[in-house]
Amino acid sequence: MKDRPPTPPGQERWDRRMEIPLTVTSLVYLGSYAMRVLGRDLPTGWRDFCLALTMASWAVFAVDYAVRLRLSGLGPLRFVRRHFLDTVVLILPLLRPLRVVTAYDRAQRRQQEPRLTLYARVMAYAGLSATLLGFAGALTVYDFEYGAPGASIATFGDAVWWACATLATVGYGDVVPVTPGGRMVAVGMMACGLALLGAVTGSFSSWLIQVFRREGDED
Amino acid sequence: MKDRPPTPPGQERWDRRMEIPLTVTSLVYLGSYAMRVLGRDLPTGWRDFCLALTMASWAVFAVDYAVRLRLSGLGPLRFVRRHFLDTVVLILPLLRPLRVVTAYDRAQRRQQEPRLTLYARVMAYAGLSATLLGFAGALTVYDFEYGAPGASIATFGDAVWWACATLATVGYGDVVPVTPGGRMVAVGMMACGLALLGAVTGSFSSWLIQVFRREGDED
Amino acid sequence: MKDRPPTPPGQERWDRRMEIPLTVTSLVYLGSYAMRVLGRDLPTGWRDFCLALTMASWAVFAVDYAVRLRLSGLGPLRFVRRHFLDTVVLILPLLRPLRVVTAYDRAQRRQQEPRLTLYARVMAYAGLSATLLGFAGALTVYDFEYGAPGASIATFGDAVWWACATLATVGYGDVVPVTPGGRMVAVGMMACGLALLGAVTGSFSSWLIQVFRREGDED
Amino acid sequence: MKDRPPTPPGQERWDRRMEIPLTVTSLVYLGSYAMRVLGRDLPTGWRDFCLALTMASWAVFAVDYAVRLRLSGLGPLRFVRRHFLDTVVLILPLLRPLRVVTAYDRAQRRQQEPRLTLYARVMAYAGLSATLLGFAGALTVYDFEYGAPGASIATFGDAVWWACATLATVGYGDVVPVTPGGRMVAVGMMACGLALLGAVTGSFSSWLIQVFRREGDED
Repeated sequence: MKDRPPTPPGQERWDRRMEIPLTVTSLVYLGSYAMRVLGRDLPTGWRDFCLALTMASWAVFAVDYAVRLRLSGLGPLRFVRRHFLDTVVLILPLLRPLRVVTAYDRAQRRQQEPRLTLYARVMAYAGLSATLLGFAGALTVYDFEYGAPGASIATFGDAVWWACATLATVGYGDVVPVTPGGRMVAVGMMACGLALLGAVTGSFSSWLIQVFRREGDED
Repeated sequence: MKDRPPTPPGQERWDRRMEIPLTVTSLVYLGSYAMRVLGRDLPTGWRDFCLALTMASWAVFAVDYAVRLRLSGLGPLRFVRRHFLDTVVLILPLLRPLRVVTAYDRAQRRQQEPRLTLYARVMAYAGLSATLLGFAGALTVYDFEYGAPGASIATFGDAVWWACATLATVGYGDVVPVTPGGRMVAVGMMACGLALLGAVTGSFSSWLIQVFRREGDED
Repeated sequence: MKDRPPTPPGQERWDRRMEIPLTVTSLVYLGSYAMRVLGRDLPTGWRDFCLALTMASWAVFAVDYAVRLRLSGLGPLRFVRRHFLDTVVLILPLLRPLRVVTAYDRAQRRQQEPRLTLYARVMAYAGLSATLLGFAGALTVYDFEYGAPGASIATFGDAVWWACATLATVGYGDVVPVTPGGRMVAVGMMACGLALLGAVTGSFSSWLIQVFRREGDED
Repeated sequence: MKDRPPTPPGQERWDRRMEIPLTVTSLVYLGSYAMRVLGRDLPTGWRDFCLALTMASWAVFAVDYAVRLRLSGLGPLRFVRRHFLDTVVLILPLLRPLRVVTAYDRAQRRQQEPRLTLYARVMAYAGLSATLLGFAGALTVYDFEYGAPGASIATFGDAVWWACATLATVGYGDVVPVTPGGRMVAVGMMACGLALLGAVTGSFSSWLIQVFRREGDED
């Protein structure tokens, strides 16, 4: 959000080269975490393997972060300040899959496809991000709530239903997290998700007004 | 939302000719579905007749879709991509009645009536769509929830009350869907409805500011 | 919202002359209705007097409506169409007090007071309207719910709490209307109130951005 | 929000000189209040000391208000009208810490730091204000609800969870204030908090659209 000095060329090359591997690693991270959380009936060997995969992908993120810190030529503190979002994502890697959205957008641009209009792109980007965030949030909350005394979120279906009702700010309250961990994830999800969905709603509104204005001019 | 090549003339002729029949069919679809869902005390013969009507109108939609696919001169995949919304509506035909809104708007325009201002039109369009969506959603959720064990939506009145509280994002949670089907419909309703109502609120806000600005200039 | 032909001079004179009496009558209407609903322990004579006052003020509204219909020189149907809002207010006179807001605004303008900025005026107008709407809504819902079996709104305080939670779209659901009448009022309140509060929020947001932009220019 | 005459130089000097002391006093006020509310197990001596600190800092605010009233050279009524927000804050001093936000912004400006963009500043300001408001609200509500019969807010964690769900307008309703005092604080929190968060969401949306527009131009 600031006027930043240009990225050093070494870092740019690294970013470009790591784009596809990191996208794949994000998916592996989310997938292995999901499998471990949801597959409570799988044999222990499988679940341990999933845990190992999750750990390994996280290690890839950590190495990537370290390399970029090195290449940037900045001190750790200034790097953290400038790459604040990256640091957050390193600690909460479930937000990683948002990288898929960026990667998809970049791929589209390369294909010279007729691109979506401005508002459609904002809607697609923010909507997709909110969906991923909701899925990751439901997963983590389910992990926290599973087996907690007095929990109202009993199945993963309940967790998804809860996540949808929360992101839409409807908040029925028929199923809610009761553990401190689950509630903290919920608050984070509200903070990020509501801004994203506000962007979707706002863009849709602007787009609709634009469509009607154009149509009015044609008459 | 993309810059699209012009519609072929054959398709345009077809679109124009089918406008009124399809609008009528939409209403028949919604009406017969509503009657079957709500008229649980009607004799079986009546309810079967309603089901037949629902099926028949859906068949009309399917034929219309097929003809337009043919006339467009595109492959099925590209057609689906370009006419994504039509495809969704083919699968979820309860959204069809939105066609009524478009038809009404077009009729108004032909009558050379003094037309509503931009914001009023957006509000009317989005508000009417949200109302139809809420009604169709309440109907479907009631159909899913009816007789489900532990359901809190007992009457159609409850379902309408639930739909209003959901679309307004108030979400009291005194009545909520409990079946997976009902919840899936609810999520779809949130996704569409909130964007529509966001457009209503946004337009109202813009309109109010416009009114106050104009009044301020007059002084 | 349409480009309307100018109001006939007779009607304009009537409007000007009736402004203060109608504002007073609005307050009498709301006050007497509130007293009858809240003063369940008052002697019957008092409550009957309140009812009479409510009826009388409604009669004033009806007469005013009839006179304006006459002066407008339009047929009833066209009059109803053009003065749609007035017609709604005739049927639901609890919305009348909104007239107070308009009257206050006009009085301010006459006083040559340094006026509020655009956004501040929108916020004041919409916020005051929402407050009046919430109060009238809480009153009506309390009237419907009072003594209903299984009602969770037991006191007028509960009704006000419910109205606030509803208008803010928070919707806790700890107290909710259960009678069909109460629920219909609630839906109307959501529809009007949310648009009004959306205008408040939107104006506040625009105002804040304006303030920050101006301050940024000063540096 | 009005075009105001310039502040007298005496007042301006006072404002500048009191800036840091008042910011510190705000933090002392919030801290001592929080300690008294949360530290129910502390020895009585400590809690009395906290109360004294709270009182003392409030006295500082009152003195500051009186001095500024004097320096402004206005009558008390006009002063209250012009400095409406300050008067509110004098009565509800938990809103004081918002001063921290302003002080931080001013400090940043002095440091000649590369400043945040317009939208980022609005987001930071409104977001930080909402956070402080939520914390102060949770504290006060907890104070009111503590030990009330039938209270669902049992711990301070519950109060924070309730505040987050309220500010996000999610409103689960699993924990809600039941005392009149707690509910009045809740309504105030909704009124202020929703406007602030609406500003955050709106700015985020505008910022996202700006980013996508700029990126689109680059292609």
